[in-house]
Amino acid sequence: MAYDATKLKDYQIAELAEANMPTPGQWREKLGLEKDEVIPYGRICKLDFMKIIDRLRNRPNGKYINVTAITPTPLGEGKTTTTLGLVEGLGKRGMNVGAAIRQPSGGPTMNIKGTAAGGGNALAIPMTEFSLGLTGDINDIMNAHNLGMVALNARMQHERNYSDEELAKRNLRRLDIDPTNVQWNWVIDFCAQGLRKIIMGIGGRTDGYMMESKFNIAVSSELMAILAVARDLQDLRERIGKIIVAYDKKGNPVTTEDLEVAGAMTAFMRNTINPTLISTAEYQPVLVHAGPFANIAIGQSSIIADRIALKMFDYHVTESGFAADIGFEKFWNVKCRFSGLVPNVSVITTTIRALKMHGGGPKVVPGRPLPEEYTRQNLELLEKGIANLLHHINIVKKSGVIPVVCINAFYTDTKEEIAMVRRYAEQAGARCALSEHWLKGGEGALELADAVIDACNEKVDFKYLYPLEMPLRQRVELIAKEVYGADGVSWTPEAEAKAKMFESNPAYADFATMMVKTHLSLSHDPNLKGVPKGWVLPVRDVLVFAGAKFLCPMTGSIMMMPGTGSDPAFRRIDVDTTTGKVLGLF
Amino acid sequence: MAYDATKLKDYQIAELAEANMPTPGQWREKLGLEKDEVIPYGRICKLDFMKIIDRLRNRPNGKYINVTAITPTPLGEGKTTTTLGLVEGLGKRGMNVGAAIRQPSGGPTMNIKGTAAGGGNALAIPMTEFSLGLTGDINDIMNAHNLGMVALNARMQHERNYSDEELAKRNLRRLDIDPTNVQWNWVIDFCAQGLRKIIMGIGGRTDGYMMESKFNIAVSSELMAILAVARDLQDLRERIGKIIVAYDKKGNPVTTEDLEVAGAMTAFMRNTINPTLISTAEYQPVLVHAGPFANIAIGQSSIIADRIALKMFDYHVTESGFAADIGFEKFWNVKCRFSGLVPNVSVITTTIRALKMHGGGPKVVPGRPLPEEYTRQNLELLEKGIANLLHHINIVKKSGVIPVVCINAFYTDTKEEIAMVRRYAEQAGARCALSEHWLKGGEGALELADAVIDACNEKVDFKYLYPLEMPLRQRVELIAKEVYGADGVSWTPEAEAKAKMFESNPAYADFATMMVKTHLSLSHDPNLKGVPKGWVLPVRDVLVFAGAKFLCPMTGSIMMMPGTGSDPAFRRIDVDTTTGKVLGLF
Repeated sequence: MAYDATKLKDYQIAELAEANMPTPGQWREKLGLEKDEVIPYGRICKLDFMKIIDRLRNRPNGKYINVTAITPTPLGEGKTTTTLGLVEGLGKRGMNVGAAIRQPSGGPTMNIKGTAAGGGNALAIPMTEFSLGLTGDINDIMNAHNLGMVALNARMQHERNYSDEELAKRNLRRLDIDPTNVQWNWVIDFCAQGLRKIIMGIGGRTDGYMMESKFNIAVSSELMAILAVARDLQDLRERIGKIIVAYDKKGNPVTTEDLEVAGAMTAFMRNTINPTLISTAEYQPVLVHAGPFANIAIGQSSIIADRIALKMFDYHVTESGFAADIGFEKFWNVKCRFSGLVPNVSVITTTIRALKMHGGGPKVVPGRPLPEEYTRQNLELLEKGIANLLHHINIVKKSGVIPVVCINAFYTDTKEEIAMVRRYAEQAGARCALSEHWLKGGEGALELADAVIDACNEKVDFKYLYPLEMPLRQRVELIAKEVYGADGVSWTPEAEAKAKMFESNPAYADFATMMVKTHLSLSHDPNLKGVPKGWVLPVRDVLVFAGAKFLCPMTGSIMMMPGTGSDPAFRRIDVDTTTGKVLGLF
Repeated sequence: MAYDATKLKDYQIAELAEANMPTPGQWREKLGLEKDEVIPYGRICKLDFMKIIDRLRNRPNGKYINVTAITPTPLGEGKTTTTLGLVEGLGKRGMNVGAAIRQPSGGPTMNIKGTAAGGGNALAIPMTEFSLGLTGDINDIMNAHNLGMVALNARMQHERNYSDEELAKRNLRRLDIDPTNVQWNWVIDFCAQGLRKIIMGIGGRTDGYMMESKFNIAVSSELMAILAVARDLQDLRERIGKIIVAYDKKGNPVTTEDLEVAGAMTAFMRNTINPTLISTAEYQPVLVHAGPFANIAIGQSSIIADRIALKMFDYHVTESGFAADIGFEKFWNVKCRFSGLVPNVSVITTTIRALKMHGGGPKVVPGRPLPEEYTRQNLELLEKGIANLLHHINIVKKSGVIPVVCINAFYTDTKEEIAMVRRYAEQAGARCALSEHWLKGGEGALELADAVIDACNEKVDFKYLYPLEMPLRQRVELIAKEVYGADGVSWTPEAEAKAKMFESNPAYADFATMMVKTHLSLSHDPNLKGVPKGWVLPVRDVLVFAGAKFLCPMTGSIMMMPGTGSDPAFRRIDVDTTTGKVLGLF
């Protein structure tokens, strides 16, 4: 029986569902895991990745289901909700099913957006743990990341203060770091716009090395990217050692290994290798692992989580951040390439609301009431906006995957509106299902579950958009044209110079292309809705993540540190001091 | 049977001992706890404070044993080792015993000092968890602290950018924060000297508010101080709301409650209320809770940990940071006053090495070999240095407690040296015991255990050094003269003006005096060893911790952010990627 989502708030549903949530011991029995493979952390637990992958190494993989979306409104279109609802629906059909999602960042949770636990009857529980730090992975990443910066700045101070002889006494060689070419920064997991640009090291000889620096949000850390793509602990350790933190005065890279801090950084991240296990409101298992944003990073839960989930479950649902132009493109050309795994199907989450916005509906602003266009039937706006959905269907089809369009139902949607979306989606060659998981949980997601089961029986001729041999600028051009629908790409002189260097240096030959772009438009301009035409993608810089093996073309004005608004969520959060419960999460 | 500490390194002893360490479930049986009172976190667990204190509320308290020390060398004189050894010794005598210690900071652990897990057979295990983050309390404090600063700086930005009308639309009133009088800062739990002073908010209208700011080490956070002194969750919540983060342009305090962030900060700290349970190498229980430095903060494990430990154990040993002039003085006049608890005895940890240094021995430098004076018999230096021990004995006696001097044995100590210390200590009215817990574990600490048991039978006429009615400057004068042995106190004009303000404002009437002073000398000058004479204590500022209810006179040049040296511990730390074990901790 589903909870009455029209009357109960999410945290109330969470509290009711949490009363019967499986304990770590019950999960162990339910999932057939061995004793040592479940590591309890209070009400939740981590799974021992290395033990499980070793024990199940000969078991065939389950079906691999990706969830993506159309270009969302700033409110989000319920991709996590759909992921959880689909798992619940497959569960109602008696399938052995699980999911992998990302850990939410404290930034959005404390700012405007709130938590990312899904909603209604398609909810991730326990909601407090999920929303506030889980089993500590982001903290571990933050500490490991900042330790790297401590090592870097302290080393610059000591090299400034000491002669070569004095350094040699401490068994240190001069790295001769170029203070104008420092790549590494600090991280914090809040929206701290005041730390976007800082001057540090103000003071005397022993107060560090004075330089410009910055804090990015922790989930944009290269360490988060590495956690998302590492295959195992050894791979994690090796990648951490290859991170380029700066360049020396001759232009050679200086790495964490050069700073002799890569081992200690890995020590801080030793537990992050193990995914956390939580639950849907209907008690289906959900792995939470890694939490990179999709506009500035890979935006996927981890390869590690998918690897064990595909061994543990017959149907495994994994979420890609934001819309198919970003989330699915990175899933397809980066995550699957790195993992070698092939998806059976991709679900494109769609709402009538977002399609109307793409058709020219008024601006949707978080925290303000929705304009009438979105709450009453409006087939004109909808029909115009469907172009955005069709574009995303085509993106997915280019990978060889036939998508399932999921209409994530709102109570204001009309039958005519739903029928129109369905007609266009099916004409474009996709399956389509209406899903009411928010209202009804798994019972509401049966149509979606059946469409997905059906799609999983099809053979997929999966092919990457580009081979790794393709030079960087050509790849970016291909992504811009084929995925975003641009006419071409323009490069700033700095970005082009960097791109040429990466293309000519064999050290970067097997690096993936990790686009950095807004999720609010197919283009780089968040104001251009629908399917923008006649535009050119501007690349202003190319970052290198040598540990993750990403070359990151930066398009538009994406920030690595969001800002806290004037009416942030933290205003409404508190603790009941008699019960210890957290109040006000939403 | 003790491990051979002369051959095995600490991490090797830890690994051997950890093989048979009690699981969370076994601890529950051993300590007679209820199921819900033990909250597992991997191999270790937290104890549910509120449930345990409620269930055992009518049980009489056990004996309350404090451990302090003489003025240490920069190497430390084994106070944690003695705490753990004493617990093991009392355990060997068949007593129901436990301890409370502080969580180590990542700063020293990654820098020169290494971990603070004790050593030899008096070791805290599991060592990796203990050294690297435990159950996340410091991370929770760091996040809660930094969220406060995010709220403060974002509010300053929005108040600058918006009119009163625009603020009112968001239900915000203008706090009118004085940017030149911001008290709150950022924290990070490493020795990041480059962040001691920063300029933040560089950029445009939406890049925060530009101002000078700083990062302190996380363990110096007022939130850590609050965790150490809070009696329960409600007290924690109330104290967090009273933190003064800045003053407005009229000079009125602006608090976290004014920023509407105190509830969310408490939400991040909701789990910190529960102490973590770990083990000695001989499987006696050790609570780890709070981790403030003693030179810049209260330097004690928490009141909460002591409250449940005194209910759970017949003998409870709690450690005070650094020497009796700092650690014991704060235990005596702040912690015990806030908790209402009365100690039965205080153990003064002493080493022959440190006494020789106080007698005029050469400088002791971490990472360099010990000069010969410390490794061969030298009764002359020793006899001169004993004055420091006698001074600390007198400090403890002023509280009404008769101390037990523990000579923490080194293999280079001679019989004559030990006999000399014993003679002086006993002449001064203290009990004295030689203890070889490092070498022999509990068997080596039986003499100490017996002396402590004996001392616990004495009636204690416990009295504070000063009543809270005494004005601030008079209190500081009293502490300087009676505890440190100064001739008087000098105040900078700024410090004196602040002191006068605090004295005249009834809001601060029940605040404790929390001295900030180096631990390396009885004076404010770390170079003055022994018992410095003819000096005046300089107070350069007075900080206010309105949530913790501390007024903190800052003496000498104590820094709230240590620096990372040129040969830090992180250079030698790594992870074995086949076993997942952390290597190189010491």
